[in-house]
Amino acid sequence: MIATLKFTALLLAVVVCRATQDYGYKDVEEPTLGDSQYGSLWPLPQKVQMSTVAFKLSGVSFQIVDAKESSSGASCSLLQNAYRRYDEYIFPISRMQGQNKKKAFASVSELQVWITSADSECDNYPSVTSDESCECPGMMFVFLVGALSQVPINRTEIQDFPRFTHRGLLLDSSRHFLPIKVILANLEAMAWNKFNVFHWHIVDDPSFPYMSRTFPQLSQQGAYHPYTHVYTPSDVKMIIEFARLRGIRVVSEFDTPGHTQSWGKGQKDLLTPCYSGASPSGSFGPVNPILNTTYDFMAMFFKEVSTVFPDAYIHLGGDEVDFSCWKSNPDIQKFMAQQGFGTDYSKLESFYIQRLLDIVTTTNKGYMIWQEVIDNGVKLKSNTADTLIHVWKGNQQQYQAEMARVTASGYQALLSTPWYLNRISYGQDWQAAYKADPQDFNGTDAQKKLVVGGEACLWGEYVDATNLTPRLWPRASAVGERLWSDKDVKDTNDAYSRLIQHRCRMVQ
Amino acid sequence: MIATLKFTALLLAVVVCRATQDYGYKDVEEPTLGDSQYGSLWPLPQKVQMSTVAFKLSGVSFQIVDAKESSSGASCSLLQNAYRRYDEYIFPISRMQGQNKKKAFASVSELQVWITSADSECDNYPSVTSDESCECPGMMFVFLVGALSQVPINRTEIQDFPRFTHRGLLLDSSRHFLPIKVILANLEAMAWNKFNVFHWHIVDDPSFPYMSRTFPQLSQQGAYHPYTHVYTPSDVKMIIEFARLRGIRVVSEFDTPGHTQSWGKGQKDLLTPCYSGASPSGSFGPVNPILNTTYDFMAMFFKEVSTVFPDAYIHLGGDEVDFSCWKSNPDIQKFMAQQGFGTDYSKLESFYIQRLLDIVTTTNKGYMIWQEVIDNGVKLKSNTADTLIHVWKGNQQQYQAEMARVTASGYQALLSTPWYLNRISYGQDWQAAYKADPQDFNGTDAQKKLVVGGEACLWGEYVDATNLTPRLWPRASAVGERLWSDKDVKDTNDAYSRLIQHRCRMVQ
Repeated sequence: MIATLKFTALLLAVVVCRATQDYGYKDVEEPTLGDSQYGSLWPLPQKVQMSTVAFKLSGVSFQIVDAKESSSGASCSLLQNAYRRYDEYIFPISRMQGQNKKKAFASVSELQVWITSADSECDNYPSVTSDESCECPGMMFVFLVGALSQVPINRTEIQDFPRFTHRGLLLDSSRHFLPIKVILANLEAMAWNKFNVFHWHIVDDPSFPYMSRTFPQLSQQGAYHPYTHVYTPSDVKMIIEFARLRGIRVVSEFDTPGHTQSWGKGQKDLLTPCYSGASPSGSFGPVNPILNTTYDFMAMFFKEVSTVFPDAYIHLGGDEVDFSCWKSNPDIQKFMAQQGFGTDYSKLESFYIQRLLDIVTTTNKGYMIWQEVIDNGVKLKSNTADTLIHVWKGNQQQYQAEMARVTASGYQALLSTPWYLNRISYGQDWQAAYKADPQDFNGTDAQKKLVVGGEACLWGEYVDATNLTPRLWPRASAVGERLWSDKDVKDTNDAYSRLIQHRCRMVQ
Repeated sequence: MIATLKFTALLLAVVVCRATQDYGYKDVEEPTLGDSQYGSLWPLPQKVQMSTVAFKLSGVSFQIVDAKESSSGASCSLLQNAYRRYDEYIFPISRMQGQNKKKAFASVSELQVWITSADSECDNYPSVTSDESCECPGMMFVFLVGALSQVPINRTEIQDFPRFTHRGLLLDSSRHFLPIKVILANLEAMAWNKFNVFHWHIVDDPSFPYMSRTFPQLSQQGAYHPYTHVYTPSDVKMIIEFARLRGIRVVSEFDTPGHTQSWGKGQKDLLTPCYSGASPSGSFGPVNPILNTTYDFMAMFFKEVSTVFPDAYIHLGGDEVDFSCWKSNPDIQKFMAQQGFGTDYSKLESFYIQRLLDIVTTTNKGYMIWQEVIDNGVKLKSNTADTLIHVWKGNQQQYQAEMARVTASGYQALLSTPWYLNRISYGQDWQAAYKADPQDFNGTDAQKKLVVGGEACLWGEYVDATNLTPRLWPRASAVGERLWSDKDVKDTNDAYSRLIQHRCRMVQ
């Protein structure tokens, strides 16, 4: 969706949450706090030209309207919703208070939004191919927020487009259940930071909050609570629509064959019975890959998922598959022998994944998978755009080597290792996240092009409704700018000054 | 205040925030999660006897009343407030919903509160000498909270008293301003964890939010905002009263001579002008100790403070005094010579502190000071109960040595070093705080007796209204139990099981 705009930037610090100073007890150096020439712009646009011409908005009559030439307008609910939202951002209270009668400066009373793209995507879902260039309404207004009408503002011209097409945030609703309102609040924060993919790690070992129409017993048995701690089909719809209106894709993750303990509670024979010696130990391992019933289940389940989640991609997980239970099970051992896998259980994992991929392919979805899948040598379909490898392991040297390996084999890559924001440390740890760059590895230009972006991850061991949002923001904003702005935007002092004001805006 | 009670303990886990399991990405080992024989008791009482006799509360008619023999009752607002508060804890909603009509078990319809102490302290402020033994209403009800009337509960007998008389929490309202409601919320949480001292580090270098009647320009000039970011006299009154009703003392800290940058904005000539070479650099250092006007100011200021804050103690700070500015100032150099201090600036600090102590003594207050004051050899008044040394520096070995030194010189000591909760790390870092013990150092029994307790500290560099409470709790609960319960209560597995349920209760 393209909008051509000329507009203005608010260059004020907000006293209400002024930056704190630097007093001991710190593990990370604090950047120097100065004034950025870009004021509070976040993430920094690709091109900014400011002039000294100052004027102000007319708080009384100001409105956002469709330009005559616009290829889309009054009939576009997506646009009209955005207009209303941003109007509230700009005039949070001033209209009510009937302020801004006096006009000390030349006054702007109208913002014309001119959609030039043929497909305005008014009613569609955002996709990988969505043109986000010069997403000006979003961007412009975001940094206009504040009691704008009270202050003169400098005329500014901005052209903008994202550096990466995939700018994701992972939330984990299995280890702790996340109430709808927490998810919506974070989708809102994502929009403010130009994230465009909500990676919903919806189920895992501890609980299965996704309410399936086809297999209701999965959440009945597997959720922390069958009524209060589940996402109903309408909950999911609401979240997807809320995200759509903000240009955010919702990619669901249903991780198999590992991380599936909660699946087993509601689906008999789905998991592998572990053995101690000759008899079952009573505990269960990964999904049982040797039963046809397993694949019948997966086919029906992912058929449902593919219709519930409209996005073109599904995240299939595939990480941390523990072979010990498989090894302990005599039926599995027999199957390994029949298949001639010897004792190489990654061949068994490969066997499962390949059948799963065939199943998902029939739903015409692309898929994302964690790096272990190819680390374990699982053969994937021809390296099409349908396959995304999600890198999350190791230290800097190791993940850079992995990014090189993945792209060298022609796969598209997505980076998360440096952005595990659940890992906290004292002081300003946003800087480490800010400095990491997904294209910073040894590889050809062709390889670099295969890097579609990255994802910040907030795993749920230690976060729930009580602490998630303040723990995640503004730290995730650092990842937002890294994935949106030009790769040369890396001055932490300048970023610090802008981020502090951006945070105040989000707090307000 | 003594109440003799016989009552019952709730032994249920709360599904709503069930414990999460253990999934990777951790720096600290997680304790094993089992069921504690003490259910969700926190902090653990000194003596608990449970029976298997089960019955339930009558949600319809249950009430808390004064025992006939009670030395205090209907006229005691402190008590009546507590009754109302705890009634709401026990029946958060059930009464409204008119539930609990059916009685499956023998039913308790009355809790008699029997005050036996001569002085019920109904209208006084809590003090060091307050008798907290068997604070049963507080303790009992705290662990009764939950939809109690829905579940049968086991008869339990409890006798209780605190291990240490000083169980404090420090909040810093200078580095980030803390809205009243955040402070009240944390006073409530303190009560739930049996903290009895709110150490209010109210001003510091970054801002001066305390509105002084005598010197209004201090906050006018020194606060982040002269109206929105200050504590008015009535704000302070309200906080002190809210704390009083919960048995919490409010000890204010006005730290000098260092950490006073914000004081200088509103009080001319209070701070030492720093010099670069022969001329003033324009920046200022600690309080200027060589001017009589300084002491005139301090006398008037602390006279006000001593009336505004009723507690018997004032925290005078005295930490981290940077001598470099004093050294740079020719007038100070001259004064040093006149006094025969040579180049030993700790003598100058001593000179200031001693005059300050004389001033505060005239207000009949005792004082708390950070350890540097005696580390720098400042001579204090005879080692009376009026002096409390606050230990905060170094690693375990160092702070244990310091505790030994302080108590060996006959001073009372307060420990905070292991409880700087602003220092966060990934995983369950409450365990380190839980394992620390203020009496764990080489010293005689007499020395150990001089340890009055400790304080958890949450310095304000990185916390404000948006993240303070979830960052502080339940981590501070670990310190609460360490300071209240018997020294042999140190099983982290047992604590983990109780703490998880205690947290759920606080969340609800």
